[in-house]
Amino acid sequence: MSTTESDLAQHIRYVALIDQHVHGCWLTPGDRRRFENALNEANTEPLADFDSGFDTQLGFAVRNHCAPILGLPKHVGPQRYWEARSRLTEIELARLFLPAAGVSNWLMDTGFGDEVTGVEQLAQLSGRPGYEVVRLEQIAVEAARAAGDYASAFEEILRRRAARAVGTKSVLAYRGGFDRDLSEPSTAQVAEAAQRWRDEGATRLTDPVLLRFGLHQGLRIGKPLQLHVGLGDRDCDLDKTNPLLLLDFLRESGSAPIVLLHCYPYEREAGYLAQAFNNVYVDGGLSVNHLGARAPAFLARLLELAPFRKILYSSDGYGPAELHFLGAMLWRNGIHRVLAGFVAAGDWSEAEAIRVVDLIGHLNAARLYRLASGDPRGPVTAGG
Amino acid sequence: MSTTESDLAQHIRYVALIDQHVHGCWLTPGDRRRFENALNEANTEPLADFDSGFDTQLGFAVRNHCAPILGLPKHVGPQRYWEARSRLTEIELARLFLPAAGVSNWLMDTGFGDEVTGVEQLAQLSGRPGYEVVRLEQIAVEAARAAGDYASAFEEILRRRAARAVGTKSVLAYRGGFDRDLSEPSTAQVAEAAQRWRDEGATRLTDPVLLRFGLHQGLRIGKPLQLHVGLGDRDCDLDKTNPLLLLDFLRESGSAPIVLLHCYPYEREAGYLAQAFNNVYVDGGLSVNHLGARAPAFLARLLELAPFRKILYSSDGYGPAELHFLGAMLWRNGIHRVLAGFVAAGDWSEAEAIRVVDLIGHLNAARLYRLASGDPRGPVTAGG
Amino acid sequence: MSTTESDLAQHIRYVALIDQHVHGCWLTPGDRRRFENALNEANTEPLADFDSGFDTQLGFAVRNHCAPILGLPKHVGPQRYWEARSRLTEIELARLFLPAAGVSNWLMDTGFGDEVTGVEQLAQLSGRPGYEVVRLEQIAVEAARAAGDYASAFEEILRRRAARAVGTKSVLAYRGGFDRDLSEPSTAQVAEAAQRWRDEGATRLTDPVLLRFGLHQGLRIGKPLQLHVGLGDRDCDLDKTNPLLLLDFLRESGSAPIVLLHCYPYEREAGYLAQAFNNVYVDGGLSVNHLGARAPAFLARLLELAPFRKILYSSDGYGPAELHFLGAMLWRNGIHRVLAGFVAAGDWSEAEAIRVVDLIGHLNAARLYRLASGDPRGPVTAGG
Repeated sequence: MSTTESDLAQHIRYVALIDQHVHGCWLTPGDRRRFENALNEANTEPLADFDSGFDTQLGFAVRNHCAPILGLPKHVGPQRYWEARSRLTEIELARLFLPAAGVSNWLMDTGFGDEVTGVEQLAQLSGRPGYEVVRLEQIAVEAARAAGDYASAFEEILRRRAARAVGTKSVLAYRGGFDRDLSEPSTAQVAEAAQRWRDEGATRLTDPVLLRFGLHQGLRIGKPLQLHVGLGDRDCDLDKTNPLLLLDFLRESGSAPIVLLHCYPYEREAGYLAQAFNNVYVDGGLSVNHLGARAPAFLARLLELAPFRKILYSSDGYGPAELHFLGAMLWRNGIHRVLAGFVAAGDWSEAEAIRVVDLIGHLNAARLYRLASGDPRGPVTAGG
Repeated sequence: MSTTESDLAQHIRYVALIDQHVHGCWLTPGDRRRFENALNEANTEPLADFDSGFDTQLGFAVRNHCAPILGLPKHVGPQRYWEARSRLTEIELARLFLPAAGVSNWLMDTGFGDEVTGVEQLAQLSGRPGYEVVRLEQIAVEAARAAGDYASAFEEILRRRAARAVGTKSVLAYRGGFDRDLSEPSTAQVAEAAQRWRDEGATRLTDPVLLRFGLHQGLRIGKPLQLHVGLGDRDCDLDKTNPLLLLDFLRESGSAPIVLLHCYPYEREAGYLAQAFNNVYVDGGLSVNHLGARAPAFLARLLELAPFRKILYSSDGYGPAELHFLGAMLWRNGIHRVLAGFVAAGDWSEAEAIRVVDLIGHLNAARLYRLASGDPRGPVTAGG
Repeated sequence: MSTTESDLAQHIRYVALIDQHVHGCWLTPGDRRRFENALNEANTEPLADFDSGFDTQLGFAVRNHCAPILGLPKHVGPQRYWEARSRLTEIELARLFLPAAGVSNWLMDTGFGDEVTGVEQLAQLSGRPGYEVVRLEQIAVEAARAAGDYASAFEEILRRRAARAVGTKSVLAYRGGFDRDLSEPSTAQVAEAAQRWRDEGATRLTDPVLLRFGLHQGLRIGKPLQLHVGLGDRDCDLDKTNPLLLLDFLRESGSAPIVLLHCYPYEREAGYLAQAFNNVYVDGGLSVNHLGARAPAFLARLLELAPFRKILYSSDGYGPAELHFLGAMLWRNGIHRVLAGFVAAGDWSEAEAIRVVDLIGHLNAARLYRLASGDPRGPVTAGG
C-alpha cells in the first residue's frame, strides 16, 4: 500500500485479531503429497495424479501471500514454493507464519488431529496466548470409556474440562447432519444408547441420541457452543449441514451462545439466523482460506443480514502453518475490499467501517469469550 | 451527483415508483427499543442488551440516507438520530418521509398491524393515492366468524373486498410453509376443516386445508395474488419458504398473476420461476431495506433469470416511516449501481437501462394492477 | 479493446475453445415467436403476449453481441434484429455464427431435437470437427424396441454407439430428479421394469429402475458421463436437481469422470463436488448464455471451490446459431472480467490467469475427452 493508505486500510492492516476457531499446526515432516492434499478440504482421498492442490484458489493464495514470508516473490510457482518450504521444519514454519498472522489470541479446538501442536505449543510458537475449545464428541468417547453411568461421566468430564476452556464444539455435521430430532433425550434413552455404544466398542460417535445429549450438555455449560456448518470434507452430507435445519434446535436453545462456523455455501442463511436469534453468531473461517481471491465476495455475503455484533473472525487453520497466517491475511484483504467499497459508494462512513472491523476482528469475540480484547499491535510481517 | 450526472442516473433519481407492497406507518409514540427492534426483521424477541438495531446494514442505511431528511448529516450516530427522530410525532415523520420516497402509488397490505395508518391515511400523508391488497388469511377469520357455510362466507367476503382492491395476499409462508399439498381441497374437506377451526375459536389460521382453499379462491378472483416468500421473522421456517416448493402449485395455477415477495435468500430461484411461468412475478421488497449497502448485490441477482417485464418494485415498509422512504432510496441507488455497471461494461446501452428502470419502477406494476403509470415527477428531497 | 490490450485480454480473445456440450442448430425456417421462445429456457409454454424474449439478459446479450455479426450496431432494437435475421436462412446464420465462436471442437449431444444439425453438419458449417455424446435415455428407448433381453440390448447398443462417441449424457434431472435411490439395480429388477415399460409402449423413459440402470451402464463405459444439473425447463423440478442430492451416487461412482452441466443456481454446490471427488467436473454452459450481463458473476462463483483442472467450457447452444456463438462470446467477456479483477487486485498473476483460461477453455476438456487440444487460432470476427 502507498503512503496515502487510507485510515481504514491502515487499521485493517494492523488490527490484532482473535482467531476464535483454530486447530494445531503440523509437527512432523511430510511429503509434497501431504501438503497438496492439505490444500483440498472436501476430498477424503489422495488427489488424482492429474490434479494439484496448487491449482485452486487456496493454492494460488498460498503462493501469493505466503511466498513472501519464505523470502520468495509473490505468485511463485509450485515447485519453488515447495522447495523453499521443504528446507524448513514444520516448527520453523510455524515460528514464521504464526506471528505474521497478527493474532492476539488463539481459541483452539483440541478434538482433532494427532501430530499437531496443542494449545500451549501453539501459544509458544506464536508468542500469543491460546485457549481451549473442548470437543463434545471427544468427551463422549471419554465418558463411554469411563466407569459407571455414561451421562454422569459425561457431565463430570465436560464440567472439568470446560472449566478451563472458553467454549465447546460439536461436529454433529459429520455425524449425520442436522435434519433430525435434536431435542434433549430422556435419561432412559441416553442410558440405553450408551449401553449399546459401549457394547459396540465406543469408538467414533454416530449415535443420534448421544450426539444430541452432548449438544444439550454443551448448552448447559453456558459457554459458547461452536457448531461446524457447511463446508467440510465429503464425509459430511453438505446438504444436511444447512443451518436452517437447526431452526427447531435454535428455538429451544435458550440463551447459551451458538457459533455457526464456516457456513459455505449457506453463509446467507447463517446470517439470517444470527439476526433471528439473540444467541446465534456466525464466522466464515475455513471458507475464507479456500476461496482465496473470491474471499471478498464471501465476506460481503456474510455482511448481509447478520448484525455486526454477531460476526466473528477465525482461520480454522489446521496442519500447514500457512493456513493460520493466510486466514488472517485473506480476511484483512477481503474485509478491506468490501468495506472500502461501501465507503467509496457513500453507503458507510470510514469511521463506521473501522468500528465494524474492530467488532468482527476482536471486540465481538472478546465479549463472547470473556477475553481481554485484542492487543492493538498487529502483525509485523504481514503486508497489506 | 455532479452536474455531469448521466441520463441514467438522472432518470433513476426522478422516476416515480409504484410501491406494490407496503404496510402502514406507525401512528403511536414508542421508545427507542421499539425503533431498534423494527430494524431487525427476523428476531421475534426483544434484542439482546449487547446488541443494537443500529449496528446492521439497515441501521447503517437509516443513519446514512434518512438522516438528511431530518436535517442531520449522513452517517450520524445512533443517539443523535434517535434524538432527532424523537422530537417528531410519527405523523410528522410520515409527512417528511413518505413524499420523499417519490412514490406515485401505494399498494397496501391491510392485513397486518394495529396502530398503523390505513390506506387512506397513508395516501393523505404522502399526497399520493393508495390501493388495498386484501389478505386472504384475514378473510378466513372473518368467514369463520360469519354465520352459515364457511366456504360461501369466504367467497362472499372476498368478492366484496376484492372488488375494491387491486390484489390479494397470502402469508402461507408463516402458517407452515410451502412443502405440503397445495392443491384445491374438496367442498367436504373445507366444511370439515372449517367446523374444526370454528370449534377451536377461529383465531390464527394454520389449518392446511383452509389455507389452500383460500389460495385457490384468491387465484379465482383473477387479480394478482401476492405471496410472502423467504425472508421474514423466525416464526416462519425459512427453508420451507423456498419458492421452488411452489412448483406443483404454480403448474396448476392457471393464468392469475402470482407475485413472489421478498424472496431472500431465494431470489435466484424466484427469478427462475418468473422465467418459467407466464403468470409469475418477482419483487425483492423487504430484502432491499435489510441489505442496505449490499442491496445492489441483491438487485443484481434478481436481474439474472427473471424477464425484465416480470420484476416489480416495493419497499414493504411497515412501522417507521423511514422504511417507506428508504426502500425507494436504496432501490434507486442499487439499481443505478447495477445498471450503470452493465452500461459501463458495454453489455447494455444506456437507453435500454433507462427502459428497464421504467419497467421495474412502474410500468410492470401499472400493467399488472391496471393502474395509470407512475407520475413522471419523482421525489423532491431524495438525493442520488 | 485498445491497442494497449493486456496479454490476458488478448489471450482470451483469441484462445480456441473446446465446446464440450452443445446441440444442433436449427435447419428449418421459423417465425419470430419461435425465436423469442428460444430465448427463454424455463418456460414450456408460448410466451405471454405482454412478454418478449428480447427483454431478458439473453435477449439483451443477443442484440449486443450477435448484432455486429449480422452487420448491425450493438444494442440494436428487437425489430431490426429480427428483420436482419429473417433475411438469412438458418444455414446461412450458422455459417456466420459458428466460425465466429472460435471453437476448435464441438462435443455434441445428439439425443435431443429434430430439425437441427447433426454432428457432421455442425462440423461442416463451422469448419471445425464435431464429436458425439450419446444420450443414455435414447439408448434406453432403442433397447426397449430391440428384440430380446432389455439389459443385453442396452449394453450392446451403448457399447456400439459409445465406441464412436467421446462420452455419454443423462437427463435424469428431467425424469424425476436426483432425490431417490441411484444405486445399481439388480438384473431381476431391470428385467421386470423393462417388461413393464415395454408393455406400456416404451416411449419417454421415466422408470427409476431403468434410469439408474442406464447411469451405471454409462459409468461402466469409462468415458465421461455428462449430467444435466440445475437450470432447465420447468418439466424438471429445479429443487430436485441440486447436485448435492448426488452425493451417495458420487461416493459409489468409481473413477469414471462425471461432468455436472449448467448447475444454476447450484454452481457453488457443484464446485464443492468437483473439489470433493477426483472424478467430478463442472461446467456452467447454458447458464452463461441466459445470464448475459450477469454471466461474469456466475463464472466468478464457479471459480470458488472447484479446482481449476476440473472446470470446463460449453455453450449448450441449441436452435438459433446465435447461441453457439454467444456462449463463447459471453464466456470470453466474463472470464476476462473475473480474472482481470483477480489480477488487478494482486491476487493472481497475469501468467496464472492465462494458464487458467487455457485449462478451462480447452486443456481440461482435451485431457478429459482425449482430444488434441484446441487450435491456437481463435475466432476471426468475435471482438473483445
